[in-house]
Amino acid sequence: MSTDLPVIRLKPKANARAIRHGAPWVYDNEVVTDRRTKNIAPGSVAVLEDEERQPLALVGVNPNSRIFARVLDRADAGAPDTAWFAERIGKALGLRERLFDAPFYRLIHAEADGLPGVVIDRFGDTCVVQPNAAWAEVLLDEMVAALVEVTGCANVLKSASGRARGLEGLDDQDAVLTGAAPETPVAVPMNGATYMADLTGGQKTGLFYDQRPNHAFAQRLVAGARVLDVFSHVGGFGLAALAAGAESALCVDGSQPALDLAAQGAEAQGVSERFSVRKGDAFDVMTKLAEEGETFDVVICDPPAFAPSKQALEAGLRAYERVAQRASALVREGGYLGLCSCSHAADLSKFRQASTRGIGRAGRRGTLIHTGFAGPDHPMHPQLAESGYLKALFYRL
Amino acid sequence: MSTDLPVIRLKPKANARAIRHGAPWVYDNEVVTDRRTKNIAPGSVAVLEDEERQPLALVGVNPNSRIFARVLDRADAGAPDTAWFAERIGKALGLRERLFDAPFYRLIHAEADGLPGVVIDRFGDTCVVQPNAAWAEVLLDEMVAALVEVTGCANVLKSASGRARGLEGLDDQDAVLTGAAPETPVAVPMNGATYMADLTGGQKTGLFYDQRPNHAFAQRLVAGARVLDVFSHVGGFGLAALAAGAESALCVDGSQPALDLAAQGAEAQGVSERFSVRKGDAFDVMTKLAEEGETFDVVICDPPAFAPSKQALEAGLRAYERVAQRASALVREGGYLGLCSCSHAADLSKFRQASTRGIGRAGRRGTLIHTGFAGPDHPMHPQLAESGYLKALFYRL
Repeated sequence: MSTDLPVIRLKPKANARAIRHGAPWVYDNEVVTDRRTKNIAPGSVAVLEDEERQPLALVGVNPNSRIFARVLDRADAGAPDTAWFAERIGKALGLRERLFDAPFYRLIHAEADGLPGVVIDRFGDTCVVQPNAAWAEVLLDEMVAALVEVTGCANVLKSASGRARGLEGLDDQDAVLTGAAPETPVAVPMNGATYMADLTGGQKTGLFYDQRPNHAFAQRLVAGARVLDVFSHVGGFGLAALAAGAESALCVDGSQPALDLAAQGAEAQGVSERFSVRKGDAFDVMTKLAEEGETFDVVICDPPAFAPSKQALEAGLRAYERVAQRASALVREGGYLGLCSCSHAADLSKFRQASTRGIGRAGRRGTLIHTGFAGPDHPMHPQLAESGYLKALFYRL
Repeated sequence: MSTDLPVIRLKPKANARAIRHGAPWVYDNEVVTDRRTKNIAPGSVAVLEDEERQPLALVGVNPNSRIFARVLDRADAGAPDTAWFAERIGKALGLRERLFDAPFYRLIHAEADGLPGVVIDRFGDTCVVQPNAAWAEVLLDEMVAALVEVTGCANVLKSASGRARGLEGLDDQDAVLTGAAPETPVAVPMNGATYMADLTGGQKTGLFYDQRPNHAFAQRLVAGARVLDVFSHVGGFGLAALAAGAESALCVDGSQPALDLAAQGAEAQGVSERFSVRKGDAFDVMTKLAEEGETFDVVICDPPAFAPSKQALEAGLRAYERVAQRASALVREGGYLGLCSCSHAADLSKFRQASTRGIGRAGRRGTLIHTGFAGPDHPMHPQLAESGYLKALFYRL
């Protein structure tokens, strides 16, 4: 074993067994924090030992984070180099190439893909890397070299806007790491629709791949339908619906840049005539539509995380209930309602209860025809699976 | 309101509010059981009142069942007739025709489709009805008349083998209700595969539609793969894999009639050369395969319900763990493992824990790439959704 790596040690009462069984994280209250340990530079790679000084794992350390250490590999693996990254990225790529016809997907989903805290989204020959843990920030050059080697991508951008970077004490400076930033939005094919992803503009809106299977499920409901997509962002459900033969799609969002990208997507897809937008607060717009007596065959709401933390849970669930209530009023009898949550704190059961309650408050009854999660390019570490954040519920009213 | 229907009344402490909010069932300890109530014939339709004698709902009553009353409709709806059934079946058919290209699906999924305790599976122009609640047994003629009217099906069979019928005090006599029973197995198209369903033979094996989306997910993993389908029944995952370009599929099951039907399906699909079977106890066969040094690219296990009740939960979870452990040993490095549970008592979280533990016991690590449930032709009443019975987990090892 390499002896030049620093060592950190679990406290006697910490759960070494959990680490041996695959637990991915060590919290700051679980390690012996003597002066030497505290002085380890954030992002260092170290060897984690149990109280008996038996090596447990190779870890990335950040003394400034609640998550003090993240398991990277076996204790004797040696510090990660470009080859190490290439092996992990290659394995992740193998799954995505099996799943998808075109190179547009989340390539690395953090712990589950063996790169703790790291997210990499691929848009054709451009990758956007989010190194949301200190160890990855330190080893960014090796990681990017491996990424280019394995994928052959021409451009690698760094996105530093993730909320998690703050928790790790990292800055928020974006950068171009390899090649160049695309000057215009990138056309992204997904489920037969075309989305426009602005990876670098001043109004950076990005694109999320996680809803892909839920878009696909919605497509089975929309042939000939009038569709309302609330909190549409760049047109996720609306453009998918038009690609699947919806009669019309109305996208509602508070962001003009997002709606502009949605309109560009509709244009690229050749469905502009069936596409329209309303900019505004989603609750206000839904109320307004109800006052106008509008109804839709299919209504889908994909709001931002109303319950991002445990503290925000109760208020968040009330907000989800309100969304369900307002949206239900806009669904014709026998129509469909899709409700999404990307809140970690609101688990499936609580989110379903809030949604069902909201439907009831609108004086409607619904049966639940489908429950969906993030797609398989967002795998989960089995010991972090409780926190699977994205939930999509489809009701028939 | 019709006054010729019997009346049952909730006890003062029973939850009338729950009924008003859509709860589907009233248990025997929630109703006033005076002599008149006890004498109501099983299967009668009655009006449920709250303690203040305010009508709450139209219900189907069974004084012999723990579920004393099942909500059918509003209190003033009047006793169900053929038109009433036709409206409910028509609405359910509308969803299925939107979802599926061919008439092979679960047409009625009990409470969620407005016919409590009733299951109807459709196989082309033959429907198999399971009237698993007394009210539906009593109104069977009206229901079947509506079914024929709405679907145009030529044949309607009654299957009385459901476990629930015993709890309702109903017999287990199958019958042909309309037309004739198909004399040979019916070819059922699903996900591009062909399954053979024996609806009437002495070795009645039927066919389950609930795994359709999980078969479809597995199909995305199997191109060119060697696939092992354990507890294969009539070839569910194995034939789906061959339809999606698997190099080979080996089906393991304890039932020779089921394996014979799987082989007939492979023949009908034109993939017999890539298809093989092993009859035997699944645990024994998996152990044997491991001893022979066999490995597969994809292994999928869809065992019977190991935890059908709360009493059986602990033993059931251990059985799921053993399945995961034995199966993991047969998956090549980087291959995929699909694990299913159709146990009500083992919820998603417990089943996932048992599965992850079993994988660990085999000395393997897995990431969870997909969680699936029963398909949308198995909708759920939102207040019964906790019990969504079918879970499918796909891991990459």
